Amino acid sequence: MNYKMIRNILGWLLLFEAGFMLVPLITGICYGERETLFFAVTMILCATIGGLCAWNKPKDSVLYAREGFVIVSLSWIALSLFGAIPFFISGAIPSYLDALFETISGFSTTGASILSEVESLPKCMLMWRSFTHWVGGMGVLVFIMAFMPLSGGQNMHIMKAETPGPSVSKLVPRVKTTALILYSIYLGLTFIQFILLLCGGMDVFESLTTAFGTAGTGGFGVRNDSMASYSPYIQWVVTAFMLLFSVNFSCYYLLLIGRIKDVFNAELRSFVTIVGAVTLIVTLNVRGLFDTLGEGVRHVAFTVASLISTTGFATENFDAWPELSRTLLVLIMFIGACAGSTGGGLKISRLMILLRGAFNEIGSMIFPRRVKRVTVDGHPVDPEIVRATNVYIVWYMLVFILSLFLISFDQFDLVTNFTAVTATINNIGPGLGVVGPTGNFSGFSVFSKLVLMFDMLAGRLELFPVLVLFSPSTWKK
Amino acid sequence: MNYKMIRNILGWLLLFEAGFMLVPLITGICYGERETLFFAVTMILCATIGGLCAWNKPKDSVLYAREGFVIVSLSWIALSLFGAIPFFISGAIPSYLDALFETISGFSTTGASILSEVESLPKCMLMWRSFTHWVGGMGVLVFIMAFMPLSGGQNMHIMKAETPGPSVSKLVPRVKTTALILYSIYLGLTFIQFILLLCGGMDVFESLTTAFGTAGTGGFGVRNDSMASYSPYIQWVVTAFMLLFSVNFSCYYLLLIGRIKDVFNAELRSFVTIVGAVTLIVTLNVRGLFDTLGEGVRHVAFTVASLISTTGFATENFDAWPELSRTLLVLIMFIGACAGSTGGGLKISRLMILLRGAFNEIGSMIFPRRVKRVTVDGHPVDPEIVRATNVYIVWYMLVFILSLFLISFDQFDLVTNFTAVTATINNIGPGLGVVGPTGNFSGFSVFSKLVLMFDMLAGRLELFPVLVLFSPSTWKK
Repeated sequence: MNYKMIRNILGWLLLFEAGFMLVPLITGICYGERETLFFAVTMILCATIGGLCAWNKPKDSVLYAREGFVIVSLSWIALSLFGAIPFFISGAIPSYLDALFETISGFSTTGASILSEVESLPKCMLMWRSFTHWVGGMGVLVFIMAFMPLSGGQNMHIMKAETPGPSVSKLVPRVKTTALILYSIYLGLTFIQFILLLCGGMDVFESLTTAFGTAGTGGFGVRNDSMASYSPYIQWVVTAFMLLFSVNFSCYYLLLIGRIKDVFNAELRSFVTIVGAVTLIVTLNVRGLFDTLGEGVRHVAFTVASLISTTGFATENFDAWPELSRTLLVLIMFIGACAGSTGGGLKISRLMILLRGAFNEIGSMIFPRRVKRVTVDGHPVDPEIVRATNVYIVWYMLVFILSLFLISFDQFDLVTNFTAVTATINNIGPGLGVVGPTGNFSGFSVFSKLVLMFDMLAGRLELFPVLVLFSPSTWKK
Repeated sequence: MNYKMIRNILGWLLLFEAGFMLVPLITGICYGERETLFFAVTMILCATIGGLCAWNKPKDSVLYAREGFVIVSLSWIALSLFGAIPFFISGAIPSYLDALFETISGFSTTGASILSEVESLPKCMLMWRSFTHWVGGMGVLVFIMAFMPLSGGQNMHIMKAETPGPSVSKLVPRVKTTALILYSIYLGLTFIQFILLLCGGMDVFESLTTAFGTAGTGGFGVRNDSMASYSPYIQWVVTAFMLLFSVNFSCYYLLLIGRIKDVFNAELRSFVTIVGAVTLIVTLNVRGLFDTLGEGVRHVAFTVASLISTTGFATENFDAWPELSRTLLVLIMFIGACAGSTGGGLKISRLMILLRGAFNEIGSMIFPRRVKRVTVDGHPVDPEIVRATNVYIVWYMLVFILSLFLISFDQFDLVTNFTAVTATINNIGPGLGVVGPTGNFSGFSVFSKLVLMFDMLAGRLELFPVLVLFSPSTWKK
């Protein structure tokens, strides 16, 4: 284990975090808030510790896969540990554990909150809360890699470990250039949404926080009723952008370079089909609850987009919808977004590989001598990827079941516990029951909150970095 | 597809089913019940159709894997279709679909019932209901194979497709001899339980039906309150035998031939550990509900044994227990019994392979060059079996999720729907909510009942035979 290199990268990370805090700092200065001070203090702390750690570049900068996983996990933990400080020292969230829960929820783009009331928080705190989504959405380490003086192809390990989806495809040969293209798309889309929200009459602060929360598919809002009190126009804009941020970003790159026929690949087609079908069924199921069909479609489309993109904004209390709708909504929570987007969940392309592998298996039982490979978009998928995807699902189930068991000691009802794990491991935010759109996570015990924090990080980093970090053999000589 | 051979074997199956009906027929004669007639009629029907189909042995008796799967699935469907006739024509169950549900539930050793009241049924009907569990427990086709004039090693395909667990180990080189040894153990254990129940003051009829229901890990009882009104002695005997029938039968063979140190293999040790740990936790959790610790331990041990063995007998309404206990009980419903037993669920050995494969994956991420095989009891497991086990889990989840979606159209609550699928696909019987130990499955729509029937068969036959049967490519030329 190259400890010096880990320390060095974590140092850089803290320097960047100090930089990120400029956003709430400027917000606080604009609104003349006293709490701005706490960001200044935290920035100095991050910059000092970060500077000391990043000062000397180690001579041996070689990183193996193992170090890649450990660095990614530790970075997200460090980011959250320091990111929680302003919430805590300002007294906005009186318990450090709760502040940490909120920050992990932010960076992991989950949006699960322990706050029952947010409107009384200072604007700089709300800005930081939403901005963590934006930072977490695309992966902070990939961002650092794009700027950091780190040589060689080792950053691929880190990019692999941090980018959602079963396979990382480099758009262009160099990782740095790929990262820059992806960030430009991310920034561009966020900016377009910001402008569209401004046009709908939102003020600059709300437009920015909403755009950050949508772009990262996070879900923290600045109003107690999430998105319910905004105009239909605003709700439709957010619906559209939740879906746009669930699409594999390489589709936008293909669109920009004119390879339009490659954009509508199998994953995107499946995503559009699922969103359409679920919206249709749920709309039919809840039509009696709304005055007009248009209102029903708007709320259903918003909810479906919010849950499949794993954002977690709400315009309606879908926990009160009929059972068929609730079941379908829970199912799409697991499906999640496309790979290579900012969304969470199992990811469409992973499910496609699983499904096709499963059907192939039946085929090979019927005709044992026929060897057929799994294909996606006409390209054969490496059997090793099919195997690794199956193992991923097994680990996903193990973490899910263990978490469900551990939090059930709190004696909440089964639906609450089940959807609390679902909403955190898939980085969604709200579930059903006590953790439904009108509830929050504050009622869980300290132990359960630690479990759910683990799930949020594990979900965002797609399990393996966190599992490697906690595996004893990682730390053996 | 060798249709002639399929017809021939199905013919033999119906001849055997006519034979099985001697058991309720004799019961009915002993109790002088008018309904005995309906068994006589069904026997004549089965014998006639069976005789006509089995008359000519086809010249081409070659069976491929595909035919093996199809024969197994069709046999269980045919067995249930004819087995349901007495319930229906006697008017005991007025709807044929409900009669079929009850019969599939019987043969698949599920024990899920559409009846709210069983004590008014004629004794011959109750005997047939419980006897289907006993027939289904060890697999009817393996039984036929042991007697049928079928040459060659082809019956291994059928044995593989019908015997629960990830791998079929032949105890002795010849399949027939293996089957005979397993049936002798099955018969012997059932007989011992029967005697022990008689000693506890049960009458012959109740002792027999209870022993049949326990041996097949089925769960149909002859009293409306299942096992609640029996003496503690009877309840402890049933607890013990539910656990004994959950153990891999080859352990008993090893015990009989004196290889005692091989008996306590990793699977058995895990099984004992899980049963002990869950019983302990649940007892601590529900201790306030019972007057004495002894009473608490008895009910908890009974419930844990009943659910992990996938039997489904009940002494207590565990649906009313605290959430931690309910969660744990739902989790052990999935775990299930040991491979090579009569129990259902995912099976301990399958879960062991999954777990060890998953941990190996983390190991190979930490040290990419280290190749480590999954081992059980010191023997390396073929990577192909590890892979196939992963695929099994994927299919299990797919069937589970699709079933959950399809039955959610009935608008029952999520816990009812979730545990209804859990209780049928794992061949348990009762779930929670509407289908809890005091409820039943009669409230579901025709469509949902069909889905749940599919799940019971799919669970008992471990998915693939049923999936192959319904796969279009099976039927292509």
